[in-house]
Amino acid sequence: MATMKRVKPREVFMGRLSYGGDLLEEISNLCLKENIQLGWIEALGAVKRVRIAFYNQETHEYEFFVKNEPLEITKLAGNVSLKDGHPFIHAHITLADKAGNAYGGHLAPGAVIFACEFRLEVFDGQGIKRDFDEATALPLWTMKD
Amino acid sequence: MATMKRVKPREVFMGRLSYGGDLLEEISNLCLKENIQLGWIEALGAVKRVRIAFYNQETHEYEFFVKNEPLEITKLAGNVSLKDGHPFIHAHITLADKAGNAYGGHLAPGAVIFACEFRLEVFDGQGIKRDFDEATALPLWTMKD
Amino acid sequence: MATMKRVKPREVFMGRLSYGGDLLEEISNLCLKENIQLGWIEALGAVKRVRIAFYNQETHEYEFFVKNEPLEITKLAGNVSLKDGHPFIHAHITLADKAGNAYGGHLAPGAVIFACEFRLEVFDGQGIKRDFDEATALPLWTMKD
Repeated sequence: MATMKRVKPREVFMGRLSYGGDLLEEISNLCLKENIQLGWIEALGAVKRVRIAFYNQETHEYEFFVKNEPLEITKLAGNVSLKDGHPFIHAHITLADKAGNAYGGHLAPGAVIFACEFRLEVFDGQGIKRDFDEATALPLWTMKD
Repeated sequence: MATMKRVKPREVFMGRLSYGGDLLEEISNLCLKENIQLGWIEALGAVKRVRIAFYNQETHEYEFFVKNEPLEITKLAGNVSLKDGHPFIHAHITLADKAGNAYGGHLAPGAVIFACEFRLEVFDGQGIKRDFDEATALPLWTMKD
Repeated sequence: MATMKRVKPREVFMGRLSYGGDLLEEISNLCLKENIQLGWIEALGAVKRVRIAFYNQETHEYEFFVKNEPLEITKLAGNVSLKDGHPFIHAHITLADKAGNAYGGHLAPGAVIFACEFRLEVFDGQGIKRDFDEATALPLWTMKD
């Protein structure tokens, strides 16, 4: 059965990321700087290049790949929670190239921001922790308080 | 002209769906269990397979198809409202395969969850009802109180 | 470094856009009518046709193109802020065709609504202004109060 936890909205930010920065790293740095431990982010924009990953459900390893061309970010969606005691960003991204064809996957380090506008919602509380999940071999949420 | 209704935020949940469950059914069950009649959901994750639909705007029928392979969910977005007196989930999904190519459509029963993390926002009030819409032959929202 | 601003949630709307209307124009009109100067919108639905753009990062010009066929909107995400003193919608869209293949880009005028359900979150305050950004030649957010 699904598990979920009521979270307490604390504040909402709107902002933009820096030209030339690493997409995942910039989001992580924002969360570290503001001490955000639990949150949800939605964004749109463009990248100069992207590095994304596909999780191989059989080998349990991420397969990384790069698209080394300008792309629109038609959607970035992610969350902030705690992994090994530190704020951790998990984000997926959908992109479109100059012909409009769409791509996507798990956002990995190595995507270079052209422009990015986001809504970041921050929640109070102890946060939600990631722990090893046997079925998927992924660090998934444990919903215990 | 567009119609809209001010809704009153009641609570926000973050959670994850169960490995191996049916994606649409799990979301529906959560809403039934928690008596959620009006809400908005955003999610990301992965599926083992997906079943999606395309609404044929001429025949007014959904055309269903299956992709029987592991896919990242780069975005799931949906809402909860009332149809025939019961909470009803309407969700669209964007996915990416192991080469990063993106697919999507109207989420149908038959998608098998690998992992899925969501933000579910619940609103107070009478809810918004779906009723037959002549122009589209779809059950769309009526915004009357 | 990224810049962001704490925004103050004022109200949330759920609604739907009109059959046959222009997708971008309908959202703009809603914001004008309700005097919304700062907001965030998430939506799903379908279009009869779409007109989208890709921003060429070298020439600094939008390249527009049309897909003249019915498509599901698997995701529309955008924001409202001030440009030249007026509410301005910036939205990106992800779509899927009858085979499930996904497309996307910057939403341009010329997309015709078949159906569209949205969540529009409105924030208080002076708004966030767009101003010419040298690096991208785009009207990006300035976060000064």
